[in-house]
Order: sequence, then structure tokens, then C-alpha cells
Amino acid sequence: MAVVEVSITPLGTGIGVSRFVAGALRRLKASGLHYQLTPMGTVIEGDLDEILRVVRLMHESPFNEGAQRVSTQIKIDDRRDVKTHTLAYKVRSVEEKL
Amino acid sequence: MAVVEVSITPLGTGIGVSRFVAGALRRLKASGLHYQLTPMGTVIEGDLDEILRVVRLMHESPFNEGAQRVSTQIKIDDRRDVKTHTLAYKVRSVEEKL
Amino acid sequence: MAVVEVSITPLGTGIGVSRFVAGALRRLKASGLHYQLTPMGTVIEGDLDEILRVVRLMHESPFNEGAQRVSTQIKIDDRRDVKTHTLAYKVRSVEEKL
Amino acid sequence: MAVVEVSITPLGTGIGVSRFVAGALRRLKASGLHYQLTPMGTVIEGDLDEILRVVRLMHESPFNEGAQRVSTQIKIDDRRDVKTHTLAYKVRSVEEKL
Repeated sequence: MAVVEVSITPLGTGIGVSRFVAGALRRLKASGLHYQLTPMGTVIEGDLDEILRVVRLMHESPFNEGAQRVSTQIKIDDRRDVKTHTLAYKVRSVEEKL
Repeated sequence: MAVVEVSITPLGTGIGVSRFVAGALRRLKASGLHYQLTPMGTVIEGDLDEILRVVRLMHESPFNEGAQRVSTQIKIDDRRDVKTHTLAYKVRSVEEKL
Repeated sequence: MAVVEVSITPLGTGIGVSRFVAGALRRLKASGLHYQLTPMGTVIEGDLDEILRVVRLMHESPFNEGAQRVSTQIKIDDRRDVKTHTLAYKVRSVEEKL
Repeated sequence: MAVVEVSITPLGTGIGVSRFVAGALRRLKASGLHYQLTPMGTVIEGDLDEILRVVRLMHESPFNEGAQRVSTQIKIDDRRDVKTHTLAYKVRSVEEKL
């Protein structure tokens, strides 16, 4: 099971980019994958190949809305020794040690 | 006002790292800065120099607990044209466009 | 044309990871894509979908060699307004302004 | 000894950003630290606190040239078990295993 953070930034479209982030997020919502929007990106849990297919659509989204340059960051945390590698578990395992 | 995401990973200490993340987070809690723990990192809002001072302490924390190599990622989003550049506002400005 | 930086780190395999990075790089070499190894990652130029297919193989590589957890970072710079978006051009365009 | 990658992107200043990257790089050159410009960022070797001081100046640089929003990514690889943790050594240790 993989947890993936994605952050998408169009360049050359102005100082605020939330309109483009929302457009990319609509592709993610349509996928049915479990995700969480954070102040600096979106984190997704699930099968890695399924996630990467959606991330590819998300990256394309600002081009469809007029951008000519897009910077996308993807961070994969892929763990195959435990079944509990989820968004909720990752946060809980830190919080219970605080 | 700056929003900063930080993610700290010790190498060579085993497959799970939440113990070290919790140790770094205790330094952040002690600072009084406003932050949010996410599945892939911690986001902090406030004065940039104040944040960077705490991030430096957070990076040092795994070494104090025995790590010999630490990989730390810092992502700064620094915006000086608006006063409302906060954790809550960044998420809200996307959500209201969905 | 896209320029993509990829950095692959297995967790829980010890403090040095160059053996695993070399394994991933062999997949990239076999692809024939143009790339450059840097101290903090590998940068690749070419068609985005072709690059992402190879990056997926690179990410799998440490698992094939025994790792149970792999952290992979991918940074895409995708520019569609110019034909000259290459590794060499990106460096030159900065150097000529120094 | 630390190896640090830094990447600086102004938002809202147009599609090309090499002028701003060059401005930040001039601060780094003036510091005397050993560095290497790559297609996706700049890697620096040396004492971590010295590097972070210069990175702070580099981040400020686009604001001095008119930007209102700057996104800066910093990736620290800090290794304290070996003396040879340098730009050249990191690349060589991978290449000799290819």
C-alpha cells in the first residue's frame, strides 16, 4: 500500500494558483481514491499504480485550463511489510509517541 | 507570512521512523508555533526566520537520539502580497473552488 | 518536453544507499533516455509518459533487491511553450545570466 | 558535513524564471561555498549552518527583484558517520556500482 503526496503548481498564470489546484483535485475526487487536502499538497492512499494514473491526470489538468508550464512534485512512501500503511495510521503512529 | 512544510527521515535506524518524527515534533510543540501534522510531513505557519530556527532544531533531533544520517526536506511558500497566507486559508481557498 | 528529477531512498536497509540507487539507475540506462546523475538525484529529459514509465521501474528496483520500504521523490518540470526545454538548456539559461 | 539541494521558484513573475535563479545564485557564489548548478536545482556542500545562512539569502533574492511570492525547496542530506560526504563522493559512490 502506498501513501503519495502530490503538489501541482502552474508557472506563468499569476501569483495565486488555487483555481488550478481545485481543477486538479476534481480529477482526484472523480477517481474515488481516499485522499486528504493539506495546506501544501494533497495526500492519497491506495494502490500505487492506480494513484500514479490519477496523478498523471492531475498534472495534465492545468494545461487543459490554459497553463503552459506546470511544476509537479510527487512523493511516494511505499511500504510492503505492513498492511496498515494508511493516511490515518501514519499520523496516529506519530501522535501516540508524542 | 510563510507556510513551511518539513519532513524528517533518519536513514539507517530501521524501517519505521515515527519515533524520530515524534521527537522532532516535540521541539516544534515547545516553540508555540501553529502547526498541523499531516501523513507526509508537518506544516507550520508564521514568521519565516522563527520557523527556520525551529526547523533547524527539528533536524538535529534524530541525531540526538542516535541517528547518524538524516534526510530533511523543507518547502517554503512565502507570500508577501496578502496578510491571509495561513494554513487554514490555503486549504479554504482551494475547497471553495471545488 | 519534460525535465524530471527522481530520487529514490530505501528505508531500513542501512545508512548507505548507493547500491540501491545504482540498481535503479541501471533501469534508466537500459531505457535509452537522456539523463544526468547529480549528487542528490537523477535528472531525465524527454517525453513525460516515457519518463514516468521508467521512473515506475526505478521505484520498484530496491524492492526487487530486498527493501521493504522505499521513499521516492519525483519533480516534474513540464513546459509546452518552447521546444528547447532540455537539461542543457535549463543550466545554460541560468549561467548566461550570472 | 552536509549536502543540500535548493530550488527557488518565484510565482507570478512569468513563465520563465532563470533571471531570478541567476540572482539567487550570485548570493551563493559570493559565499565561497562549493556548489554545482544542475537542471533542477543547485547542490551545495559544507557546514550545514553556513549553508542554511546562504540559502536564506538566496530565498530573499527574488523578493528584492520584485517577486511577491517565492516557493523554495531545500533538501538536506546530513551524514555524520563519514568524512567523505561531498558532492563528488556521492556521485562516485553510485557510479562505481553501475
